[in-house]
Amino acid sequence: MHERLAGPDLTNPRAERVRRVRALARRSSRLRHGQFLVEGPQGVREAVRHCPGQVRDVYLTPAAAERHPEVVAAARAAQVYLHTALPEVLAAMSPDAQGVLAVLDATSTRLSEVLSAGPRLVVLLAGVSDPGNAGTVIRAADAAGADAVVLAAGSVELLNPKVVRSTAGSLFHLPVVTGALLEEVLPAVREAGLQILAADGAGEWDLDELDEAAARGRLPAGGHRRLGPPAAGTPAPDLAAPTAWVLGNEAHGLTGAARGTADAVVRVPIHGLAESLNLATAATVCLYASARAQRRG
Amino acid sequence: MHERLAGPDLTNPRAERVRRVRALARRSSRLRHGQFLVEGPQGVREAVRHCPGQVRDVYLTPAAAERHPEVVAAARAAQVYLHTALPEVLAAMSPDAQGVLAVLDATSTRLSEVLSAGPRLVVLLAGVSDPGNAGTVIRAADAAGADAVVLAAGSVELLNPKVVRSTAGSLFHLPVVTGALLEEVLPAVREAGLQILAADGAGEWDLDELDEAAARGRLPAGGHRRLGPPAAGTPAPDLAAPTAWVLGNEAHGLTGAARGTADAVVRVPIHGLAESLNLATAATVCLYASARAQRRG
Repeated sequence: MHERLAGPDLTNPRAERVRRVRALARRSSRLRHGQFLVEGPQGVREAVRHCPGQVRDVYLTPAAAERHPEVVAAARAAQVYLHTALPEVLAAMSPDAQGVLAVLDATSTRLSEVLSAGPRLVVLLAGVSDPGNAGTVIRAADAAGADAVVLAAGSVELLNPKVVRSTAGSLFHLPVVTGALLEEVLPAVREAGLQILAADGAGEWDLDELDEAAARGRLPAGGHRRLGPPAAGTPAPDLAAPTAWVLGNEAHGLTGAARGTADAVVRVPIHGLAESLNLATAATVCLYASARAQRRG
Repeated sequence: MHERLAGPDLTNPRAERVRRVRALARRSSRLRHGQFLVEGPQGVREAVRHCPGQVRDVYLTPAAAERHPEVVAAARAAQVYLHTALPEVLAAMSPDAQGVLAVLDATSTRLSEVLSAGPRLVVLLAGVSDPGNAGTVIRAADAAGADAVVLAAGSVELLNPKVVRSTAGSLFHLPVVTGALLEEVLPAVREAGLQILAADGAGEWDLDELDEAAARGRLPAGGHRRLGPPAAGTPAPDLAAPTAWVLGNEAHGLTGAARGTADAVVRVPIHGLAESLNLATAATVCLYASARAQRRG
């Protein structure tokens, strides 16, 4: 490694390039330049492996290059610009890079592209505001084998560095659609043949009962309707069917419109005294239930 | 409300009391005084409702008192000291209190107390270092109906304000044992009749297969042994049995000792390209699988 990466290319923490990279921590700068930061070895490695065309520059310290030869190898294989830099330079570019940082071009995925590919499991985030939650849901969606995530307008910005970090590289594994209005996304998703399940602590259907029903290959006669008017005759949703899960804001939950448009509102059962689950953990439980049911069939 | 809470009691952000409360954000001060902070209306309400004997003082702004009458009512019912304070005073005490703050006496729960109660679902955190993860796991354990959480020595400090905030009040719903050494906890837990399941991305048993098996009321003949020597004849763990889940550090996973002591090492299946799930989301999926299996029987 040392033979080939002799002497850091970048030695001045006050250089113009350093200032430009650091500025991408700010939304205004990301919008102006159409670029964003990926911090840390795991994220950079996945970006270089899965989205090499988006990677403008990779920066790493000599120590990080030695610690993470797979990042260097992936960057070389993808023919992206690889710069070594003094630790002070990396630290000036980002306090959270652990010695490895990349600048990527922002791209966008259209909802129509995602839907035309015939997805079976999609996550719609409607007004999620915590960056850690948004990123963790994207990571969980990837792990559960979901086909796409839609971060509807009004949610936290996808390219916020905290969101990118929390995805742990999953941002580069599956399409994430941003900026679409929820009221336009919902009918399009339904038209593509997906049922819309809203996750809500006050939902009328209990996820575990739907899970049991899917496992037994039959559906329960009716859900536990804890709230709202009893919707007699409403069929139980089948977890094995193609599904879009809708998740609302951490504090305020789903809007009435989102809840009203959904085919069913499903709750993760709370067995203890907790008021609710954290948004990302609830999403993960829902996604894994769908994945289990869909893979069983 | 206004009639009864006329004029804030505390008006000076530079008062000695304010300094003492704010100091509890530091570990050294928590240790010296044996007290800790609970920030925000949800946490304070749950503390006052479920652990009133620990609550030394509740502080709130007049606006927060009006917004959260349930906190005021619960504090009055529990006969804890209730102080109104100017917003500047609350802000000086904590930047994360949203107008409602409490100081509590730290107490400790012994492992032997927890185990003598005959628990069926317990979480052991071994070396978890991120405060948000630790708190979110405690919240998920509560939601899944677990009987206790053990935060083994070497994990993040339970009374760190970020941990307390992330529990969203669940810290006051179930016993959390701290400071015990993992190598002492594991045999004691086993002696209490719980099987020990270690959660690890490289585990030999697939959680979904165990879940299916439990749902069908029978166990699979053998797990997917992706790693290590094939342990021919090792029986599959039964998710319906009393269980302690062990979770390791976010970056380094479980120690060899923890893995070796476990009755089985179980992985949440990864269907996509993600390397792993976030610790708290993985824990939640495991806990809900146990809860489902145990409640089915």
